[in-house]
Amino acid sequence: MTPQQIQHIGLVIRPGIEAAVALAAQVVDWAHEQGRTVLFESESAELFGSKAARCSSAELVQRCDLIITLGGDGTLLSVARHSDSKAPLFLGVNFGVLGFLTEVRPTELQATLERLLRGDLYIRERAMLLGILEREGKVVFSSQAVNDFVVQKGARSRLIDLDVFLDDEAIMRLRADGMIVATPTGSTAYSLACGGPIADPSLNVMMLTPICPHSLTSRPLVVDSDSVARIVVPHIEDLVFLTADGQVSCELKPGDVIRITRAKHRLRLLSAPTRSYFEILRTKLNWGVPNKNE
Amino acid sequence: MTPQQIQHIGLVIRPGIEAAVALAAQVVDWAHEQGRTVLFESESAELFGSKAARCSSAELVQRCDLIITLGGDGTLLSVARHSDSKAPLFLGVNFGVLGFLTEVRPTELQATLERLLRGDLYIRERAMLLGILEREGKVVFSSQAVNDFVVQKGARSRLIDLDVFLDDEAIMRLRADGMIVATPTGSTAYSLACGGPIADPSLNVMMLTPICPHSLTSRPLVVDSDSVARIVVPHIEDLVFLTADGQVSCELKPGDVIRITRAKHRLRLLSAPTRSYFEILRTKLNWGVPNKNE
Amino acid sequence: MTPQQIQHIGLVIRPGIEAAVALAAQVVDWAHEQGRTVLFESESAELFGSKAARCSSAELVQRCDLIITLGGDGTLLSVARHSDSKAPLFLGVNFGVLGFLTEVRPTELQATLERLLRGDLYIRERAMLLGILEREGKVVFSSQAVNDFVVQKGARSRLIDLDVFLDDEAIMRLRADGMIVATPTGSTAYSLACGGPIADPSLNVMMLTPICPHSLTSRPLVVDSDSVARIVVPHIEDLVFLTADGQVSCELKPGDVIRITRAKHRLRLLSAPTRSYFEILRTKLNWGVPNKNE
Amino acid sequence: MTPQQIQHIGLVIRPGIEAAVALAAQVVDWAHEQGRTVLFESESAELFGSKAARCSSAELVQRCDLIITLGGDGTLLSVARHSDSKAPLFLGVNFGVLGFLTEVRPTELQATLERLLRGDLYIRERAMLLGILEREGKVVFSSQAVNDFVVQKGARSRLIDLDVFLDDEAIMRLRADGMIVATPTGSTAYSLACGGPIADPSLNVMMLTPICPHSLTSRPLVVDSDSVARIVVPHIEDLVFLTADGQVSCELKPGDVIRITRAKHRLRLLSAPTRSYFEILRTKLNWGVPNKNE
Repeated sequence: MTPQQIQHIGLVIRPGIEAAVALAAQVVDWAHEQGRTVLFESESAELFGSKAARCSSAELVQRCDLIITLGGDGTLLSVARHSDSKAPLFLGVNFGVLGFLTEVRPTELQATLERLLRGDLYIRERAMLLGILEREGKVVFSSQAVNDFVVQKGARSRLIDLDVFLDDEAIMRLRADGMIVATPTGSTAYSLACGGPIADPSLNVMMLTPICPHSLTSRPLVVDSDSVARIVVPHIEDLVFLTADGQVSCELKPGDVIRITRAKHRLRLLSAPTRSYFEILRTKLNWGVPNKNE
Repeated sequence: MTPQQIQHIGLVIRPGIEAAVALAAQVVDWAHEQGRTVLFESESAELFGSKAARCSSAELVQRCDLIITLGGDGTLLSVARHSDSKAPLFLGVNFGVLGFLTEVRPTELQATLERLLRGDLYIRERAMLLGILEREGKVVFSSQAVNDFVVQKGARSRLIDLDVFLDDEAIMRLRADGMIVATPTGSTAYSLACGGPIADPSLNVMMLTPICPHSLTSRPLVVDSDSVARIVVPHIEDLVFLTADGQVSCELKPGDVIRITRAKHRLRLLSAPTRSYFEILRTKLNWGVPNKNE
Repeated sequence: MTPQQIQHIGLVIRPGIEAAVALAAQVVDWAHEQGRTVLFESESAELFGSKAARCSSAELVQRCDLIITLGGDGTLLSVARHSDSKAPLFLGVNFGVLGFLTEVRPTELQATLERLLRGDLYIRERAMLLGILEREGKVVFSSQAVNDFVVQKGARSRLIDLDVFLDDEAIMRLRADGMIVATPTGSTAYSLACGGPIADPSLNVMMLTPICPHSLTSRPLVVDSDSVARIVVPHIEDLVFLTADGQVSCELKPGDVIRITRAKHRLRLLSAPTRSYFEILRTKLNWGVPNKNE
Repeated sequence: MTPQQIQHIGLVIRPGIEAAVALAAQVVDWAHEQGRTVLFESESAELFGSKAARCSSAELVQRCDLIITLGGDGTLLSVARHSDSKAPLFLGVNFGVLGFLTEVRPTELQATLERLLRGDLYIRERAMLLGILEREGKVVFSSQAVNDFVVQKGARSRLIDLDVFLDDEAIMRLRADGMIVATPTGSTAYSLACGGPIADPSLNVMMLTPICPHSLTSRPLVVDSDSVARIVVPHIEDLVFLTADGQVSCELKPGDVIRITRAKHRLRLLSAPTRSYFEILRTKLNWGVPNKNE
């Protein structure tokens, strides 16, 4: 991708951050100076309070060459899963702590954009998952996910049964609060809280991590992301949900079948060349910091 | 307690088990032969399909000297938390697998009742917890629990913050799916699935077990059950619930304060004298069974 | 590989199993009938008590086309790591419980050999790791491993520090009892006991699993097995060992550098076509078996 | 205990810390000014390089009213387990990070001693365990422990079997790297690294924590410390050790029986009144510190 190909810039703002709105204004000015057009995600346009052009997240991904998200990892996740063949570049700015997907700090944005226009790009590609929910033979929900798909019981429900298949082979009946199917990128998100391993984001794997499994012998499984994980919900007592990236969810019915496999397209993240994955990991998990627990 | 003191017998039946209804009929016959009265929990009376006397679970505990539950651990839990000073004896019959609270098999019930009338009783006492929910200074919910109180997010919500205090000392701010406060009895229930330890049921402790903690350094805490655990929910994005024994629940509001400590009264379980706690544990967890994973 | 190419058969017997010696005798008879030669691993030859031809494990792998191990997974591991370019087929017979590497039961051996001679082969390939220990710039130990390399403190030592690198990038300083670098095959061995995930054996990954990490934020890492994991032991208070497959070990000195990456060659296992990996897993971990802990 | 009762002061110095030797000199001067005598642990006397009176750790505990340890938790542990009926006060100074047992920083020592002489004492009592090793009916080793007893395999050994009893009831056969029996004080030490819970140090419990259990259903057990935990090592392939507080160890033989229960006497720690247990825990585990992993 050459700098000339970046003509249309999308902007997404996390609600409740004054500084993000201010930074958006700077991006708009800069874009106009550079002869680029700016398009806002609808709710972000409201926050920006202007008559700026706006569209849905899904459209934004279709129409833009670069999407800048101002907030945190969640802000980027709210649009990134719409990426497809004409995948725009994503540039995530974090207004809180260093994010796994949002490495650029607000003060670094200007320099990053200038580097970008000089063609000095460093892009990380991240595999996504595609999840399809079938009910009585029909697709009733489908989404991509950058981090994970989660099948989980409601808070007042008791544990649920899930029948898990891999490429049509029955793997197990899981009794648990639910199950996560995560990308390596998602291995540091919810899967980690549920005891899953950390996986190098370049791997072509997906992780099947049980959530609070009733059976003490259930363990996280790492499998090829070219395989198809199929999850069947044989019966439901109360509420069970399928959620993509913790952002969109869908209530499940008994007999529902969920198929998850690697998405055809990859997410493309503009990255700080000087910050490695393990450096971010180390920073966030305090590895190698002198240990206080002695 | 002498056999003569057992005059009023309560019956609770788990829906969907034919054999449980049949066994209830046997108990009714036997009770009448012995000159005892029988009282049904309301829904169980419906299942029994008779004009039998009936009342709520809470009343049942007040009016009966012995309560026989026909189902599984969940059936016993549905009434046991109402135990108070005039605590009846509980006799749990399990129609599925051996339960931690329901050691008696359907075929053993007759013999157990006869032993009971001979005064040959073996009673296990189990500590319960008392949980009180305060909102704007008023008690809006209160319950006892045999196993646990659970504060947990809804399935579509993101993780929640909980401020945890012990006897007014701030212990931690927890970011997690929720937190369990469990009795030793409850240590083999949901707490175990969340990584909690197993505690001898005779101990005066309670367990504070985080559910899928976001922070990797959060760990289950074992504290004195004479202490008061206080959980404050500082803010709520979506749904958060407090649940007692997985049976009754209550939606929480921001600022809600939950206080949990040992209940004044203990649950009294009629037990098979020949089955020890560790034997049940071993049977259910497969300990000591020749290990297949070599 | 055609049946004709299987001319030289190697035999390894686990000490202490009478039936294994008897089965070895059957194999010898069968081999002679079929015009094949038989060669024993040295200690196995002693057990067999004959004047049978014998050699070391390393030689056995060089000279045989098929190696039959009679014992358990450990028996197969004792020779399998010597596999190289001229990798023989391995056929593991288990005399105890079903093994991850030894799927054939003693009663199935005859039929398996006959199927083999008909050319009816089902071979699983398993990646191995190559580990090299350098001291003051010189290679002082090197081995392949089918399951894992383990760096671990002695029983009387306190925890050790390990500096872990991946392709020359410093990942972390680990304070722990040690660290495992495991193949997917080894994910169900020691790594699992230390909290590692289960990985599909076909994946090109290796697992870095900390053993009892002092820092609670240390977690198992799944990385590309084309990468080189480098472990440096900066200082040693008492004893630290490097072990390959739990079979051979080497005492480490301060400053020692261990490099581990995927081995050039793969282990080739003769397998029962009707027994899938997940079936073995399910059998050994009791997945899907009606859950007793309710 | 009145200030007048503190006549004999014991000093223990961790090797390799210059500042500890210097601080010891200050303590000696101060003690002489105050008319108190000073006694060194033998190796510490060597470090101090004087003709100072010296004796073994065990004697030190007998002869002193106050023992000041200069180093870290390990330095205090090296003498504390000798505490008996005439238990001296312990004052642990830490030269590294805040310790669970050594709360006083070098710069705070002078003020702490002055407060002590004014009778302004804050003492924490900590339960210890007593462990006895019997071989062929004879006691061959016995020790107290402030943190834990550990039964563990050598680094080159494979997993070991342990038969575990509680008050003569067989609890389980454990296949693992070993087992820890820990006090609540020790719950934040090795037991925590092996997945054990954190226990309030005032509880009368002990924790049985398996080390890397082969069976995935083995879990930490919390039991009454008035019970006797008995561990039998039925057979040994290579090396197995019993260690007390990570300080003294003993090689085990097949058939050895270890009995562990609460020690008769308690450790008495001089404490900073302003520092609570949970504050130390929070500091050391980073609880409540704004979470970086979002």
